[in-house]
Formats: sequence, structure tokens, C-alpha cells
Amino acid sequence: MCVPGCQEVVARRLSRRGLFRGVAGMSAAGVASLAGFSALPAGGAFAAPVSFSKVVDLTHVLDPSFPTYFGKPQLEIRQLFSFDKDGFNLNEWVVNEHTGTHLDTPFHFSKDGPSADALPIETLVVPLAVIYVREKAAADPDYRITAADIATWEAANGSLPPGAAVALNSGWEAHLGTDKFRNADASGTMHFPGFHVDVAPVLAGKGVAGVVVDTLSLDYGASKDFSFHYKWLGSGRWGVEAAANLSVLPAKGATLVVGGPKIKGASGGPSRVLALV
Amino acid sequence: MCVPGCQEVVARRLSRRGLFRGVAGMSAAGVASLAGFSALPAGGAFAAPVSFSKVVDLTHVLDPSFPTYFGKPQLEIRQLFSFDKDGFNLNEWVVNEHTGTHLDTPFHFSKDGPSADALPIETLVVPLAVIYVREKAAADPDYRITAADIATWEAANGSLPPGAAVALNSGWEAHLGTDKFRNADASGTMHFPGFHVDVAPVLAGKGVAGVVVDTLSLDYGASKDFSFHYKWLGSGRWGVEAAANLSVLPAKGATLVVGGPKIKGASGGPSRVLALV
Repeated sequence: MCVPGCQEVVARRLSRRGLFRGVAGMSAAGVASLAGFSALPAGGAFAAPVSFSKVVDLTHVLDPSFPTYFGKPQLEIRQLFSFDKDGFNLNEWVVNEHTGTHLDTPFHFSKDGPSADALPIETLVVPLAVIYVREKAAADPDYRITAADIATWEAANGSLPPGAAVALNSGWEAHLGTDKFRNADASGTMHFPGFHVDVAPVLAGKGVAGVVVDTLSLDYGASKDFSFHYKWLGSGRWGVEAAANLSVLPAKGATLVVGGPKIKGASGGPSRVLALV
Repeated sequence: MCVPGCQEVVARRLSRRGLFRGVAGMSAAGVASLAGFSALPAGGAFAAPVSFSKVVDLTHVLDPSFPTYFGKPQLEIRQLFSFDKDGFNLNEWVVNEHTGTHLDTPFHFSKDGPSADALPIETLVVPLAVIYVREKAAADPDYRITAADIATWEAANGSLPPGAAVALNSGWEAHLGTDKFRNADASGTMHFPGFHVDVAPVLAGKGVAGVVVDTLSLDYGASKDFSFHYKWLGSGRWGVEAAANLSVLPAKGATLVVGGPKIKGASGGPSRVLALV
């Protein structure tokens, strides 16, 4: 899956602990400026009964060739038993928590935020608002959702519902299977859209529980400091990366189901993500 | 997690390929006697809009100590990055597909049935019927659900809805954390309730899509031939093992959401299983 130069970038990134420490320090301020873990919305979706008549699968099929942020495979499937030889089929997986369509928990970018087993299920089944920025992302692969995009959505659809999730429909899914999905330049820097760090407090102020992207990162690909990750996850909220089929959803009215792993201490993990429409 | 003698039993089981081949042969007849893969119900739940006002999490928290059918740990969590050292937390897992609250696909006990990535999502979000046999299981740990239990449920609740899932509420969850959850005897043979093989064609004939148990196996613990697994999964239907919180659900009216892994070729996998009530 690796494009030219990306492994060097990975090596640089993973050795830049000074950067990570520095950003972690910055993120502490981010946490302080938001509501904090205790403000994780709970049950916001259930003020009234929810109704749906179809299910849309927002999950990509995951195999070892699925693109990854760091550009190297993050899933190995080991066959332990086979039907022909043993009478049944059974594999084990060696899998990185941040592979395929997956959950990012607060613990991923905080010292002691909730891990995957600690997120209340009420915060993972929530109203879904879909922000359409496909033309903007096509014109600028480094595009980041701004407060203006949120205002435009609310002008058309009313206020974001309490406890909602907000999804980035950037159209980037169309590039899956090509190098443009990671869109790394000669230096290995990736170029795909994401959420602007300044939108984190805006969404948190509206009681949003989580965000969803159709790319490999909540931050835009060229980010060097994961600033949205630190501010958003660090405030006790969650994210979903590499979601599928956002383009077939209504801007308003769907209910998101994040079938995240309930594994003790997980920073996230491959998830079954659905929309009830 | 292993109780005295169980590892020897595991070794015997895994070496008994003759048995598995023999049972696989038997299962071929089972498949022929059922509707076959093409009969996997599709969209049965969506004849009318579904409404719910709360979510019940049917998923146990999974950690390396969670009990397993074979009695040995099936999950290893490897920390790759830590917030204090690296600025973010990230693990990888080495995990057996049949660990914790998890999905069994048709491919688990058939040569070429649908794997986890190939099960239509409409067959994983379905009406849930809960069969209460707690006193029977308390009196007989080898109890298996029979056609009479299905008839009793239908007499009280009407016909099983098309495409439904049928859950075994045996009360066995109360034993989690004690040796009684596996309930292995001195020979290593386990004793916990399950589905009787003769119920497979009865449920298939009613268009049931999947079954759910609150134990470690769809078959009862003392089974030597996995006969229900072969007949049920071999007919293109699915199962969920080690479900939580079935006892708080109504007998009728909940909608099951099986958030199974969408991993290519998976025979099953840890899943986020929910009930919409």
C-alpha cells in the first residue's frame, strides 16, 4: 500500500516524539477549552422514538491491502483451521486498532479519556448530520470543514440535534483503490480533506458526540500536528475514519450506529458502522 | 482460563480430524435438507418501518481473560504507542475470530458459505425473538432448545417474524467470571445449554436468519459433533455466541443489530451486538 517516500515519512513521524509531546502539551489546553470528558453527550438520540425503514452499511470490506494512514499493511489474517482439513474454518487476525472503517476513541489522543469499552452505547447510536463538501474537496484536497460549513448545514436543516454525529462527505471514497486515496506527494505528505481544528469547539458547544470522515484521518492529510484529533478526542468525544457510502445518505434524518469494538483499553478499532434511514 | 483436563480435550478435539470429516459429511446432508445458501433471508425486517426508543448493549467487555470454548486465551493486546511516550495511544490485537461476544458465519462450518464480509447487512439487523428457558437450563445444564420451546413462544407471541433472529435466554450469563460458565467436568467435557440439532430445520422453515446464545457455543457444551453448527451455519445462516443482557429484553418486539466484522474471508469475529427496543 506504500507510495514512494511514505515509509521514510512514517519513520520520521514515529521518531518525532518531541513533536508528539509538544502537541500533547498543546492538546491539554484544547481539552481545557472544551467541556471535558464529563460532557460526553449521553442518550441525546433518545428524547423521542427513532424510526427507520432501511439500513445503509457505512463499512468498507477490510482486507490486508486496505490503505492505511502510515502506508503499511495493518492486518494479517492467519488461517488456523480449514474446512477441508479440519472440518471447520477459523482464522486469527493481527490487526492495528486504526485499520479500515474504524473508531477513534478519546483515549487514542488523551492520557486517560474513555477507551472503546468505556464509551456509553447511547453516544454511539445518534442522529447523523452529513456535511457535503465534495466540490470544495475536489478543488482543494487540503480542504478542512469550517464553522461556515456547519452554519450552511444548519441554515438548510435547522440546529444540529443534541448528541449528534457530524459526517464529512468529501467524495474521497471515490479514490479508494487508487493512490489518490492517500494522495501522498513526493515528500510523502498526504493531501486529503478533514476537519479544521477551529471547528472542534464549535461542534462541542453544540453537544455533538462524534465526527465521521470518508478519508484516513479526522485531520486533513497534510496535518503535521494532529490538532483536530487532540482537541476533539481530547475533549472526550469520538471519531470514525474511512467510512463508506456517506454519499447515499440524506443531509439530515439518518441515525448512525457505530458498532465499535468493546475491547478493554482499546484506543479504537475496526467497527461495523451503519446508518438507519 | 483453562480448567483441569480441558487442554487435553482440546488436543484430542483438534486431532480428531476423522470426526470432523465425518461430521462434515453428515452436515452435507443437513445442508441438503435445508434451504441452502440461497435461502438466506434478505430484508425481512424492513417490510414496515422499525421504531425504537432505547438501545441495549448485548456485548460483553472483551479482555484477554474472557472465557473461550477451547479454554485458552484467544486475545493478546500489544501496545504499540503510548500517550506518555509517543503522544497517542495505539494497540494491535492478536485475536481469534471466535472470541468474546462474536459472530459465527456460514463459512465457519461450511466449505464455501458466506464469510463475514458477504453477509448482507439486511440479514444482520432483524426482529429478535427471545426464548426463555432459564429454569430448564438451571435444572439441566445440558438442556437444548426444542421445537416445543419454539411452539410455546409462538403460542404466546404469534408466529416468528420473517427474517428474525431467535435468542436462547438460558441465564448462563450469570455464571460469567466463574468456572460454571464453561462448566467443564473432570474429563474436560463442558456442560451448558444450546440449540438442539432438530430445531435447525424448524427455524429454517420459518425463515429465521440467525440464532443467538448467552453461552460459548450454539451447540450445547457436551456436544461432540457440533451438529447444530453444521446444520444451521451450513444452511447459510448465522449465529452469535456469548451475548450479554438477553434477560432485560422483551420476548418479542426488539430489533437485533449484529455489528459483525466486515473482514474479507472471516469465519466470524468479535462483534458489537445491540438490541433496539
